[in-house]
Amino acid sequence: MLSVNQAVKLLLESSARLVRTETIPLLDATGRTLASDIIAPIDVPPADNSAMDGYAFRNIDWTDATAGIPLSQRITAGTVPAALAGGTAARIFTGAEIPPGADTVVMQEHCEETGGEVRVLKLPSTGANIRRRGQDLATGQHVLPAGQRLRPQDLGLAASLGIARVDVYRRLKVAVMSTGDELREPGEDIQPGQIYNSNRYLMKSQLAAWGFEVVDMGVARDDPEVVSEMMQRAAQQADVIITSGGVSVGEEDHVKAVVESLGSIDLWRIAIKPGKPFAFGQVQGKPFIGLPGNPVSVFVTLLVIARSYLFACQGITDTSLHAAPHHALFDKPASQREDYLRVRATAEGVEQFSNQSSGVLFSTTWGDGLVRQKAGDEIRQGDRVDFLPWAVFN
Amino acid sequence: MLSVNQAVKLLLESSARLVRTETIPLLDATGRTLASDIIAPIDVPPADNSAMDGYAFRNIDWTDATAGIPLSQRITAGTVPAALAGGTAARIFTGAEIPPGADTVVMQEHCEETGGEVRVLKLPSTGANIRRRGQDLATGQHVLPAGQRLRPQDLGLAASLGIARVDVYRRLKVAVMSTGDELREPGEDIQPGQIYNSNRYLMKSQLAAWGFEVVDMGVARDDPEVVSEMMQRAAQQADVIITSGGVSVGEEDHVKAVVESLGSIDLWRIAIKPGKPFAFGQVQGKPFIGLPGNPVSVFVTLLVIARSYLFACQGITDTSLHAAPHHALFDKPASQREDYLRVRATAEGVEQFSNQSSGVLFSTTWGDGLVRQKAGDEIRQGDRVDFLPWAVFN
Repeated sequence: MLSVNQAVKLLLESSARLVRTETIPLLDATGRTLASDIIAPIDVPPADNSAMDGYAFRNIDWTDATAGIPLSQRITAGTVPAALAGGTAARIFTGAEIPPGADTVVMQEHCEETGGEVRVLKLPSTGANIRRRGQDLATGQHVLPAGQRLRPQDLGLAASLGIARVDVYRRLKVAVMSTGDELREPGEDIQPGQIYNSNRYLMKSQLAAWGFEVVDMGVARDDPEVVSEMMQRAAQQADVIITSGGVSVGEEDHVKAVVESLGSIDLWRIAIKPGKPFAFGQVQGKPFIGLPGNPVSVFVTLLVIARSYLFACQGITDTSLHAAPHHALFDKPASQREDYLRVRATAEGVEQFSNQSSGVLFSTTWGDGLVRQKAGDEIRQGDRVDFLPWAVFN
Repeated sequence: MLSVNQAVKLLLESSARLVRTETIPLLDATGRTLASDIIAPIDVPPADNSAMDGYAFRNIDWTDATAGIPLSQRITAGTVPAALAGGTAARIFTGAEIPPGADTVVMQEHCEETGGEVRVLKLPSTGANIRRRGQDLATGQHVLPAGQRLRPQDLGLAASLGIARVDVYRRLKVAVMSTGDELREPGEDIQPGQIYNSNRYLMKSQLAAWGFEVVDMGVARDDPEVVSEMMQRAAQQADVIITSGGVSVGEEDHVKAVVESLGSIDLWRIAIKPGKPFAFGQVQGKPFIGLPGNPVSVFVTLLVIARSYLFACQGITDTSLHAAPHHALFDKPASQREDYLRVRATAEGVEQFSNQSSGVLFSTTWGDGLVRQKAGDEIRQGDRVDFLPWAVFN
């Protein structure tokens, strides 16, 4: 059996980053992945400016708190200051440009203004309350690397540099398909022997939340010709194909034979619980991922294994998962497989859902995340364990 | 000064949940907030079914491993089984319904099938490998509460119950406006005295990522009439109005006077760093939030203070922030305000960005999250501190 780390490593090694990129308006770029580095084209701030509402002057012109300094100009944000006449001060506001010749800003609370003069009651040191040109970012500085998935603060930073459009990888197209005669869609009547198709909703929602373009192939009947036809359409339309269920050696499982006939498939035995059976291959050159059939297995393998691969194909550099250690409020014997337990977090620690069966999707809606129990490790109440809140998979 | 907790508490107390709801297709509901509880309308699974590919039989019909049991039917997933004839077995596949009369499923790996008979080499206990009707969810069970923001697993769970449409609150409409003659849009030329407008991009991106409908009012010149006209349009179009900058007592700040003339405004002094000045009021009955002007202050107060209020208005029940304790790799003296430090996480702990100035937005793109340093608490290297990865604010 492959360990989870080995499986992820193999997938990452065989991943191919998208080649096609596009240039889009900055405001549309949240969640998209940068295709080229952003390098600062200007200094930020672009000029020395005032950090306060106050008065700008030359420090050596100050003699004492009783001597008024004549005011020679008034500088608001967005206006261009004149050079400061010798021996004078300028009224200045937050964000306004420092006039040439001034070297100090004093906050208005430390001043008295009367009759066209200002008295500086408390002298700050030279350079005080001035934000220097380029102190935040200097021209030429690498600020955001290719492979970064853009967050709100990244958009803010790019905007502060005057960047209106960014190069991003186009969205990865992921085809989702399910197979099974027993599957009915929500809203339809259910007949004996049938169940509702939850995996399609789970997968489509998660893939879309990751920012991929989901190509929904629908549900194929358990018929090799139908499955084959759908698989070929998926290979034409998408970059990656994902299925749930149907990849086993059972005589009613046609996916394996179909993928073999159109490309190649490896059935992996990954030491993960839930979710051991996992298939990876290609259909007419397009990567194929076969997830298990049980909903919790689908969810866990999608988050823990498939996510890294899909992120890498999308061009995202950082595909790692950062656990937040927390205290276990339960005992759990060691397992031969890496076990992903559905848990709820409290201030004291994490408690596990009473039924950890891979069919019980309710465990994932009840829970706040997963505890990763490494193969062979026993968990005893009070131990610090690897807690993965759902948000770490975003 | 108000503590951060006091400020959030005051905001939550004055928040009013949206009244209007809508019923939308389940597949469109990711990130939306449930307006009514989801109660299981059916049992899951809807009938006893097989957990394995194997054979279903009556346990007492087994005599020994050499005695063949005649096969009377073949049951695939999605078909309706006949009652099991006495003394016979049924070939059965994963997910297929258990025939009436059978009480045990044996996995195919423990059987030999020849000439229309199956020999069960290893007898499992009665009830083995059968998933019982209702074992995951029972009809009438409360599964998802109103106020839940829907995640992929919630959609999967609702789908498994056959639910095709859900009641959600309509999206909260949040008007965003900036004021300032110095602000230029990215892509435009910058003149002396001007800077690029980063707050608009930061705020719009974050609000949209939270799932709100952003009403972009643009940038108002520093002119009371222009600001007033824009503010009134915002009050007509949106549920909440947010501005950045311009809310101070400075003579170039018109927002305060305009909001006072159209409604009411309180200037709060919150013991938070960055971000002390914060305004809360109403414009023609619509709540008004005035964030500070510096980009890091905007970002931190949006995440730490405004988020909870906006979530509550959207109808989201859980607005809390769960910190992930981590080790500090730095010393930091105590502060009189609650300090939100931009930090990067490593396996060993969190390191802080070298420049914690509220103007340096790069600290937020460099960092993985915030460390919350409570007022009066000193941080020493090795201490466990409250680390808030960006993902906790999602």
